[in-house]
Amino acid sequence: MQHEKVVIIGSGPAGLTAALYTARAQLNPVVIAGPQFGGQVSLTHEIENYPGFTGGSGPDLIEIMKNQAEKFGARIDMDIVLEVDLEHGSPFRVKTGNNEYSADALIVTSGASPRLLEVPGESEFTGRGVSYCGTCDGFFFRNKKVVVIGGGDSAVKEGLFLTRFATNVDLIHRRDSLRAEKTQQDRAFENPKMNFTWDTVVEEIKGDNKVNAVKLRNLKTGESYEYPTEGVFIFIGHDPNNSLFTGKLAMDEHGYVITDKFMRTSVEGVFAAGEIQDPLWKQVATSVGQGTAAAMSTEQWLAKRESVEKVAEHVKAEVAAEAEAQAK
Amino acid sequence: MQHEKVVIIGSGPAGLTAALYTARAQLNPVVIAGPQFGGQVSLTHEIENYPGFTGGSGPDLIEIMKNQAEKFGARIDMDIVLEVDLEHGSPFRVKTGNNEYSADALIVTSGASPRLLEVPGESEFTGRGVSYCGTCDGFFFRNKKVVVIGGGDSAVKEGLFLTRFATNVDLIHRRDSLRAEKTQQDRAFENPKMNFTWDTVVEEIKGDNKVNAVKLRNLKTGESYEYPTEGVFIFIGHDPNNSLFTGKLAMDEHGYVITDKFMRTSVEGVFAAGEIQDPLWKQVATSVGQGTAAAMSTEQWLAKRESVEKVAEHVKAEVAAEAEAQAK
Repeated sequence: MQHEKVVIIGSGPAGLTAALYTARAQLNPVVIAGPQFGGQVSLTHEIENYPGFTGGSGPDLIEIMKNQAEKFGARIDMDIVLEVDLEHGSPFRVKTGNNEYSADALIVTSGASPRLLEVPGESEFTGRGVSYCGTCDGFFFRNKKVVVIGGGDSAVKEGLFLTRFATNVDLIHRRDSLRAEKTQQDRAFENPKMNFTWDTVVEEIKGDNKVNAVKLRNLKTGESYEYPTEGVFIFIGHDPNNSLFTGKLAMDEHGYVITDKFMRTSVEGVFAAGEIQDPLWKQVATSVGQGTAAAMSTEQWLAKRESVEKVAEHVKAEVAAEAEAQAK
Repeated sequence: MQHEKVVIIGSGPAGLTAALYTARAQLNPVVIAGPQFGGQVSLTHEIENYPGFTGGSGPDLIEIMKNQAEKFGARIDMDIVLEVDLEHGSPFRVKTGNNEYSADALIVTSGASPRLLEVPGESEFTGRGVSYCGTCDGFFFRNKKVVVIGGGDSAVKEGLFLTRFATNVDLIHRRDSLRAEKTQQDRAFENPKMNFTWDTVVEEIKGDNKVNAVKLRNLKTGESYEYPTEGVFIFIGHDPNNSLFTGKLAMDEHGYVITDKFMRTSVEGVFAAGEIQDPLWKQVATSVGQGTAAAMSTEQWLAKRESVEKVAEHVKAEVAAEAEAQAK
């Protein structure tokens, strides 16, 4: 069992930021990378909306963040976590594929994953026409035609946001009505740039270098056809990567870990940052801010605890000395 | 009167991030720079703890953030705000030295300022031995001797943090006891790296290229003497730059603007981000996260409002048409 002051689970912007801050606070953290080093960002071809970074792709940004954290002493373990034991309080046990850690404090940054359509062409064209984030990628689709897949709140909200850029936003939904909030529906129906295709699913995403069409199928008629488009925005849900923490950390009804403004979870000594606990913003910039706060809270919690332990030891030593003196 | 959708007051990391995000959402924001373009960051000589930025100084980072926001259509007005009128709701009036704006939404990012000692050498050596942030600059003082000025919570907390790096942390305080929280005091007194000099003030900060001493004066004996040190950390308070908003936005007892998790203030349509509303973290990374959230909330608020207005117009037109039909 390898003992550490701080173990960080996840290597996206929140995790690497927490690593940078705890490393600079001399806490010598270990980051357990998880199944995808860098998280969702590492699948992003171009990042324009992280302030101060104008350099290019998601992997480029992650590489800089990693080197920066390592420069101050953070260590990266390219492994996945199999199990965490939070039941007995700090130190917590973290079992990975090749190792077992005990950690005084844990920072959970395991992120979230967009639900995939799981059709041919989807992964091939991700970042080349296929996107899961309107706020991130809308700007790349100015004066273009896009389709939005989904019928819930986020599909409608993001669809409306995309009308700022695109000439047409065609929402494609497998049912014959939206599940989104009523006022959002009203806004969508009255927006002249939005069109709705009901009872229809995507069978394939097509293109050469970039997306140029989707193959659709009407579920009622069974008819399949190609529909030309330059962008495919998929909003069929987002799942926090919480399976390691089910029944161990308090979560909201959508499975996001609940944190307070100090990024504390329901277990003392376990902090969380990034999309595992953020149903609202889901941006690199917000995850970085949360990672910073989680690291600073972790540092303060550890420092307080260390001091309490020192006082306790001191008292114990005094009591022992007193007893010895009386025994003489 | 110049009408704008979004006016941002302040040009530090929170303001420039809000500008980037609202610009990318096609809201064409105006940033009113304020007395110090870039805010506190522009006085920072080296930034190591903003993830993804390894390029150098505060002004360098601010320059990149500015260009990035401008690239997407943000405009910077190099002026100061003299007065804001929030009383009548949106649109809000913002009077600057040379102009007057009306703004559908306001984002307040006017920041905070550390209280200065106001002694000779202080501004000259800021960033060259004089610092107002242990989390930011502690790492530069590994194996060096530093002094901490102040006796409140932040002086003691930051002093303790600095013991991770420095060989000695000498706390210099004008009174004969600390005002910090009791448990923090206990931790400080038991820490072997911390020393305390009571009833003493700093008269001057000395050095050549960098700080090498402080001139101290004992208030009880009147004696003045030089004390060698490589770092001077000043923690005598932090003031949110709130004078424009007194009596207009709800504030906490220390004058920080109160925001909720959507970065909304007490006035509908006025959002805030960065240190004006952050007594906790005060980092570039956290201000950037807050600026992102404030911008996304602003976008959503404006979109909802626009849609409500459109529905109202539509209803009005229908009522008028109905009336006309009946009149025939």
